[in-house]
This record gives sequence, C-alpha cells and structure tokens, in this order.
Amino acid sequence: MPFSMHTHTCGELRKADIGAEVTLTGWVWHRRDHGGLIFVDLRDREGSTQLEFDPEVCDEKAFHTAETIRSEWPIKVTGTVRPRPEGEANEKLATGEIEVYVTDIEVLNTSKTPAFQIEDHVDTAEDVRLRYRYLDLRRPKMASNLRLRSDFTFALREAFHNREFLEVETPSLFKSTPEGARDFLVPSRMQPGHFYALPQSPQLLKELLMVGGVERYYQVAKCFRDEDLRKDRQPEFTQVDVEMSFVTQDDVMGALEQTLADAFGRMGVKMELPLRRIEYWDAMDTYGIDKPDTRFGMTLHDVTSIFGESKFKLFSGAANTEGQYVKAINAKGAGKWPRAQIDKLAKVAAEFGAKGLAYIAFREDGSVTSPIVKFFSDEEMANLRAEMDVEPGDLVMFAVGARLEADTILGGMRNHMADALDVPREGHDFLWVVNFPLFHWDEDRKCLDSEHQPFTQPNEDELDLLDSDPLAMGSHTYDFVMDGYEAGGGGMRIHNAELQEKILEKLGFTPERAEAQFGFLMEALKFGAPPMGGFALGLDRVCMLLAGADNIREVMAFPKTASGSDLMSAAPSEVSGKQLKEVSLRLL
Amino acid sequence: MPFSMHTHTCGELRKADIGAEVTLTGWVWHRRDHGGLIFVDLRDREGSTQLEFDPEVCDEKAFHTAETIRSEWPIKVTGTVRPRPEGEANEKLATGEIEVYVTDIEVLNTSKTPAFQIEDHVDTAEDVRLRYRYLDLRRPKMASNLRLRSDFTFALREAFHNREFLEVETPSLFKSTPEGARDFLVPSRMQPGHFYALPQSPQLLKELLMVGGVERYYQVAKCFRDEDLRKDRQPEFTQVDVEMSFVTQDDVMGALEQTLADAFGRMGVKMELPLRRIEYWDAMDTYGIDKPDTRFGMTLHDVTSIFGESKFKLFSGAANTEGQYVKAINAKGAGKWPRAQIDKLAKVAAEFGAKGLAYIAFREDGSVTSPIVKFFSDEEMANLRAEMDVEPGDLVMFAVGARLEADTILGGMRNHMADALDVPREGHDFLWVVNFPLFHWDEDRKCLDSEHQPFTQPNEDELDLLDSDPLAMGSHTYDFVMDGYEAGGGGMRIHNAELQEKILEKLGFTPERAEAQFGFLMEALKFGAPPMGGFALGLDRVCMLLAGADNIREVMAFPKTASGSDLMSAAPSEVSGKQLKEVSLRLL
Repeated sequence: MPFSMHTHTCGELRKADIGAEVTLTGWVWHRRDHGGLIFVDLRDREGSTQLEFDPEVCDEKAFHTAETIRSEWPIKVTGTVRPRPEGEANEKLATGEIEVYVTDIEVLNTSKTPAFQIEDHVDTAEDVRLRYRYLDLRRPKMASNLRLRSDFTFALREAFHNREFLEVETPSLFKSTPEGARDFLVPSRMQPGHFYALPQSPQLLKELLMVGGVERYYQVAKCFRDEDLRKDRQPEFTQVDVEMSFVTQDDVMGALEQTLADAFGRMGVKMELPLRRIEYWDAMDTYGIDKPDTRFGMTLHDVTSIFGESKFKLFSGAANTEGQYVKAINAKGAGKWPRAQIDKLAKVAAEFGAKGLAYIAFREDGSVTSPIVKFFSDEEMANLRAEMDVEPGDLVMFAVGARLEADTILGGMRNHMADALDVPREGHDFLWVVNFPLFHWDEDRKCLDSEHQPFTQPNEDELDLLDSDPLAMGSHTYDFVMDGYEAGGGGMRIHNAELQEKILEKLGFTPERAEAQFGFLMEALKFGAPPMGGFALGLDRVCMLLAGADNIREVMAFPKTASGSDLMSAAPSEVSGKQLKEVSLRLL
Repeated sequence: MPFSMHTHTCGELRKADIGAEVTLTGWVWHRRDHGGLIFVDLRDREGSTQLEFDPEVCDEKAFHTAETIRSEWPIKVTGTVRPRPEGEANEKLATGEIEVYVTDIEVLNTSKTPAFQIEDHVDTAEDVRLRYRYLDLRRPKMASNLRLRSDFTFALREAFHNREFLEVETPSLFKSTPEGARDFLVPSRMQPGHFYALPQSPQLLKELLMVGGVERYYQVAKCFRDEDLRKDRQPEFTQVDVEMSFVTQDDVMGALEQTLADAFGRMGVKMELPLRRIEYWDAMDTYGIDKPDTRFGMTLHDVTSIFGESKFKLFSGAANTEGQYVKAINAKGAGKWPRAQIDKLAKVAAEFGAKGLAYIAFREDGSVTSPIVKFFSDEEMANLRAEMDVEPGDLVMFAVGARLEADTILGGMRNHMADALDVPREGHDFLWVVNFPLFHWDEDRKCLDSEHQPFTQPNEDELDLLDSDPLAMGSHTYDFVMDGYEAGGGGMRIHNAELQEKILEKLGFTPERAEAQFGFLMEALKFGAPPMGGFALGLDRVCMLLAGADNIREVMAFPKTASGSDLMSAAPSEVSGKQLKEVSLRLL
C-alpha cells in the first residue's frame, strides 16, 4: 500500500509474487519453533502470511529478535517471497502457497499477554471481549465485519449521491419532543434549566428540509433512544435516513429499490426488482407478522369454516362469532417430536398472547397425538388434512381469536418452529409490506396511536373514515423487510397543516401539547410544504444480516451492554460537582 | 429526474429542449401579469424557469388557477418548451433562452406570505432567517451551499474509500474526560448519578481502533464542545476524522495530501502537490501566526540589529536584551491614511497583546508621520528603509518583546491590515505548518500544557529535553492551513505506554487522575499498539471557505445562535419533572 511502512498487506501475496522482496507489518499471531527454524504467522486486517526465520539467511541479531517476539507484538519484516515446500501449502489460506523468507525484522512495540486468544472460534465471554474491544477487533471476523459495514455504507452513499440526493447533516442537539421512546437529555449550560434532546430520528428535520426545497435528502444518521435494551437494540444506533419531495409513493419506493439494489449488489447480493409488495393485512393473514420471512412456507390457513359444527366448542364458538377465527399452521417434522416437547410449545405460544396451544401431531405410524382430536368428526379431520396438506410427521397448531390476535400467535409460532426445526433459509429475502393501518388502539392509554408515526399520510380515499372508523384507515406506508426483519420503514408525510392538526387531535393531543411539541412543524407546513415521503434503513441490523451475525453488537466497533455501559472506558461515569453545577443540576 | 413528479428540474431546460413537452415542479417565485398573459418564475433547488400562461393555450380552469397562485405556493405544471421572444432572453439565467408555455397546472399546496423575500441579496436579520430556516434554505445561495457541502463531503469519502480507509462509526455516548473544552453531559437513566459525555472528538476511540488493527480509519464525525460561541464556533460541529497505523509522519501527510487534492479537485479547486511545509517557528517568525495566509506578503522583518545603538530606548533596550526582539511589518498603502485612523490601530494591536503601537507612516509627499521617528538616527532610518523596502505611502509598524509576543502582535496586525486595505487574495492557499512545540506554558495554571494534545508524539531526538527543557521540544505535528484558517490538524501519536504516562505526568496529571481519565487508553497501549498518526479536518470551516461565505452558519442546515439556541424549534427547552426524575436529577 502506498503511504505505509509495508509494501504489501498480510492478505495479499500470491504465487505470482514469488521472488519479490517485500516488507510486511502486523501482529505476531502464531509462532512455532521447528528444526532450528522459527515460523511466525503475521496478521493484519487483510489476512495472515507465514514468515520463516532461518539463521542461515537472516543475521544473528534478526534471528535473536525472532526468538524474543511474543504474541500480539507489532513487527515489521523484510524478506523474499518464496513458495512453501512441496505439500506444505495451506489451501484454506489465501496466502497459503507462499511464505516470506525473512532477512530483517524490527519490533515496533511489545505486548502484554492478551486476556483472550485472537481467534474467531474461541468462546470468550462477551463482557471480556467488550472490556478489551481493541483486542477483540483484531479477530479476523470482527475485522471483516467492520470492512463489510464500511463498504456497504459507502455503497449506499454512492447510490444516493448518484441519484442527486444531497447529504445534509441535521443537528444532534435538538428539541425534546417525547413521543414513543424516551429522549436522552442534554442540559444546557448557557440556558439553565433548559435541555436539548438527542434525536430519536431526524424525522421532523428532514420534513423541514423538504419544506426548505432540498428535494432529495439522505444522511447516515446517529439516532438515540433511552429504552431498555435487548439483543438488537442499542442506546445509539444508525439509520440511513432519506426524504424526497415532489413525489408519489411509487416514486419513493422505486428510487429506494434501485438504490438498495445498487448497494446490495456491491456486496454481491442480488436483489430482483421490482421487489414484491405485500399488503399489511395479507402479510398478517398469511404469515401472522408484518415482517415475514418468505424463504420458507408454513403459512397460516384460515380453517374457521371447517369447524362451524364442531363439537369442540372453542372452535365452533369462534366459527359462529363475527370477527373470530380459527387459524392453523403445519410445522412439518415436528409431528415426530415426543409429546413432552410438543407440550412445551404452549409456553412459547403464550409469549405471543395465546392462552394455550391446541395441536395435532400426526405420527409417522399413522396415529395422532392431540388433546383435542377426540372432539373432531371424521369429516372435520378429513377437511383439515386436505386444507393443511397433512403428511405423517406433521404438527398442526391452532390459534383462535380475533384476526390480529390469532395471526400474531401463529406468526410467532411459525418463526419459532422454523428455528426449532432448522428450516433452511438460503440467500436473502427482500420484500415490501405496504399499506399499514393508520392507527391502532392503545389499550393502556385508551386512545388511538399511530401505527407508524403521527406524520404519516392517510390514504386519501379513506379520509372520510377519520371520524367514523379511524381504525379501518390505511396509510401510505412501506416497510422494507429483509430475512424476516424490519430492515427499514417509511411513508408519505402529511403536507397539509390542517390535516396534520386533525390527526394529532385524533391521537389525543391537546392543541397546547401539539403546539408545544410540533408547533414549528405545523407552522412550516403552512409555508408551501410540497408532497413528500421518505424512509429510514436500520443500518446496524442490515449489516448484521449481511455479516451473518446474530447480534448487532457484532457489526459495531464499540457497542454498549444491556445496561448501557461501555465496559472499556467505564462510561457512563460520575462527574464532578463543578460539572453538574455548571449545568445548574444536582443529583436527586 | 426519474422517480419524481417532474420530467426536468427548473435549472435544466435549454435551447436544445425546444419543442419538448415537460412537467416541472417548484415554488412560485416571481409572478408578473402582462398584456393578458401571466408570467411566473418557477424555482426549485436547481434554478428557475419562466412559465407563460396564455389564455389562448391553457384552458380556462388552468388560467384561472394561474391567476390565484401566490408566492411560495408549490405547483406542478406541464407545457411545451419554446424560445423566448427575440431580445427577451436572459443571459444571466441558465434557462434564460427558453420558457415553458403552460397547458396544465396543479396547485400542490398554498403558502402564507413568507416573513422575508426568498432572494439572495435581501438583508434579512439573521434571527429571522434562523426562525424560518426552512424558508431561508430556499434561497438560491443556501441551496447551493448545501449542495457544495454534500458534494465535497462525498468527494472526501470517496477519496478515503478508494485508499482503503474504513469508515468506522464511534459512539456519541462516551466517557467524560474533561480536557480543554467543557463536555456536554448526558445523564444515564439506567445508572443513576452517572453521565455520558458527547465526544469533543473521537481522538481516544480512533487510537483504540488502531490498536484494534483497523489500520486506516476515517469518519465524518459530529463533535461537541460546550464553549461560549463565536462566529466560527458552534456547539456541535463536524470533523473529517482520520487515523492510520504502521506509518511514518510522511506517510500520513502524503496520504492526506492526495486525498485532499482529490476532493478539492472535484470541487474545481486545484491543489499543487506536494504541499508546502512551513516549520512552526518559521511561520511565527515570518507571518506572526501558525496559520498564515500566504496569498499576500507583508511579512515580519527582524529589525532588532538595526536599533542596537538607538536613542529610542524601547528598541535599543530590547536589542541589548537576550530573547527580546524588535520586529516590523510594512503595510503598503496605509501610509496614506490620516493620522487619526492610524492612531486607532493601537487598539487593534492591543487585542493581540501590544501595549502600544510604534509606527512610521511614509507620506507620499516624502514626509513621515510617526511618534518615534524623532529618536532615530539617519543611519537607522536608512537601514530600516532598506530592510522594509519602504516606498511613499507605506506604513511600517513595530512590535517589541519576546519572540512569540512580538510575532503574535504583528501576525495579528498583518491580517488586520490585509482586510483593512482589501489586499487581493485570489484563489485558495494551502500549506502545512509542521513541528509545533510539544508544550507551551500555561500561565493561569502555572504548568505545562500540550500545544496540540496530550497524545502527541514528541520528536524522538529531543526526548532527553523532557526533564531539562521541555518547552524546547518539538513534535510530530502538522496543521493544514487554508486561506489563513486552521482547516485541519494532526500528529503522530505516542504508542508507548510508558512515554504516555511520563507526558501526562509532565502535564500535571496525578497518577490517579491519569488513570481515571485515560487509564483505558494507557492499558490499550500495552497490548501491542502500532505506530500511528492521524488528522482531523474542520469540515464546516472548509466548506465555508469553498462557498466564499464568512460564517460557518451559512454552510449548516440548522445552526444555533451564540447562546446555543435553535430558533426554529425553540431548543433547548424545559422538560417535564418526570423526565428529570427518570434520570435522577433536579434543577439547582
């Protein structure tokens, strides 16, 4: 590489380089003394190269140095590239056909013995990895994850830049508008008693950019939510934030599809265009979830009509009640499980809201195991077998309830069973889920809540339902689903101030609260706001999926623990009384 | 543009498009009714296009609509491109040769009358502009500034990406290490009484990335400093942050030069390579400042030796005292100023530490005006005239004192006089200032302070001065100077834990404080830290210079006022008692 101490990286040398004099730098990875020779694997972010120290070739001082070096010392060596001896090539290693016959070595620093081995497949506790993250990042997998993230982010930026999107930086110190998640607060020193908030997203600011004529905006934006953490949540996360104006919904989705296809294509992941679009209610009815993984079947079937006359009262009761459903999925293979294992599934179903789990296990010997089958007539069984395409070894599970309720239980079970049965999910799965309801009912607060967010454009032809049946209203919304994860989401925005006011009112905002929180947006809408829509891609999650990792921490350089700690620097930490006094605060 | 309501932007149509049917969107800018026709300038971020509504061509409804539209309404029009009538072309406008003969119009929204005209050269108070920033951004100059910033940022990213730098995101919620500037604090809810700090820069984290093997890192990083603001300071600002490992200082500077030249080149600004390098002390001696604008002369001359025998005791006293200097600059043209105007310069000089200002104005009639010249011998005057290349109309100003003291006064005066005399400064001026002192003396705290920062690598051959004469030590440092501004700065880092400890000790850190603040860095250095160095470019400032603006707020979408307010959203604001209680705080 130009402008480096080395002429080549440790992942670069091949047969074609044999005979070349090269200089490499990196960390001592493995060292073996063998037959008076010293072999060292030298590692950098690009790979590793075998070094050979032969006292016949390098001078005494260099050989002596080679004897003293230890794991994780950074060194610089010069030598000649030569083939490995016949039969000693390492096919698993990109540089496995060559080695560097060292003539000179310089020790650049020493190292204490690391707290854990710098290897991919060593089972180190994550808190130790995070405490010494700078060592953890040396592991080949972490190095490759960081590169993947950098490459994908750049590919996205390039795709947006090439389509005339402007990158605009929006402020991180902004106004607290406590909606949904909790804000992180930042006390102001110059204005005692006043606080900034770190943005949960640049949503309001990007709409203001559209009002300001930016027309096409993107930003790889750090966002903050002070929520309790779980495996795919962090207090700060990154979204690729996009907004367009003078557009229709199809314009936004079309531009996004091409941009995403470009960027994924750069990563070697082909995305067929146009992407499939699934209506929200179809996704719920078929997959029981608004972010379906369609790489496997196990779809939901509506079997309500089969059980209209059933002696099993739970089913026939539902079948004869407006708005109640009996639905089923068939988990092929789980019918072979022992009864005890099947019975445990009720606990899983409970996580998704079920009160129990009705099932029929079709045994390979032709028998069935089921707590409920005794109530079914032969005709019901025959119809069920036909509808669910039953074969020996199948496990049919049921859920009963209102549409969303039954769907949600089986959607959860479908994903659970796919994992439990290790159902193959090859490649990546991309689709849009569109037309989400505008509202849902918030049972805790006893009022309407936005399904996406308060600024979402309702379907124009359903505006008359706003007073009569708001829960039936759809909206101009689109979620980007990747491999069963909500990888991104967006929608068209309300650009009419009156409609925005009305929606906020429906959401239970008093005029005063609406004005205090969103007054500046509603004022802006009155100054010629254009039609607009946008999107946000969850960069951490998409990188996780691209890297084949199961946790977003694996694609972040310095993630935090579930309690929000940085274990390396011991943040958050106590601060001095002087620092608190400067911002006019005291501890409770 | 594909995926838009319009077929062309308002800055795009030319003679070659005549005859085409086009659809444009944008805001109504200017409207003129003339001879039964209506003319509208339609504006978007790319420019403006003249529309003509002729009742003979568009139907009655469309013409009526055209009669109702007002300034800043967003509209969509369809029509035919045709040449403007003979003699009516507007050469100043890119689209000035054509107009669109409208057949159809759709009003996309209405607008209240804006608080100010959307024009570049209207003198609107800045607080009004910031209150309605979304209107201000519609001004052509602001639209072009945002595009410039986006283009330059992308060009930088591309240049780094092409050179194998990885973009790595470092956390914004990190540890408070109060060094230099004040930290913005973020209270933790999950760990009551504990605080994160927003990063003043990713300095420590990028060093840890180097220890972690990233080798080449860049990030366009938001940084935060809670300092009192002035015209080129904001509480949050953006730096292009870079770090490299397994490198020498020349490697880092070489890679940076090429990267910067690539990016500036994309903006049409040629940067000759290699960049000039000026040693810190040469810059101080010659220009009186460590960020010289070398597009004009007016250099500092050491005239000490001329006045060894002078009857003017201030000069001869200095000339006969070790370490004291008499220095002078010649501001050509200012010798014509009236005496009263010249006398006012003493106040300016006082800002740079002068107790008064000795000067000689060489009048065009051959006379001199000066409070001190009466003490000078003919020989002294002759020598001075020769040294300072004096011509009629010149103003020679003196400063007396220790080296840095005298230099600083005249460096300040040199810049002041260049502005006052409107000295031409064509094009852009790029250079490196290198080898800054490692320390300076902090008179307030009565101890050594870092000239750059505590992690800077001292010159290796001067390490023996650390105890005997630390102020004489130089360092591996380089500031990137553009047009007389410190546009960026960097240095090689200490990668030896012991040396780092010793430097912190010299800076007055107790071992406990060093451990509490930087313990995690010093621990990391013990695990095989490689040689490393880096850089940070002040993106806001560089964009300001590229845009020809005189304030960084002109190149930021949503800047804050001097008291840290966002006037649009009224941030910072009061928060609820519940929000404070959640983070275990109360107001003082």
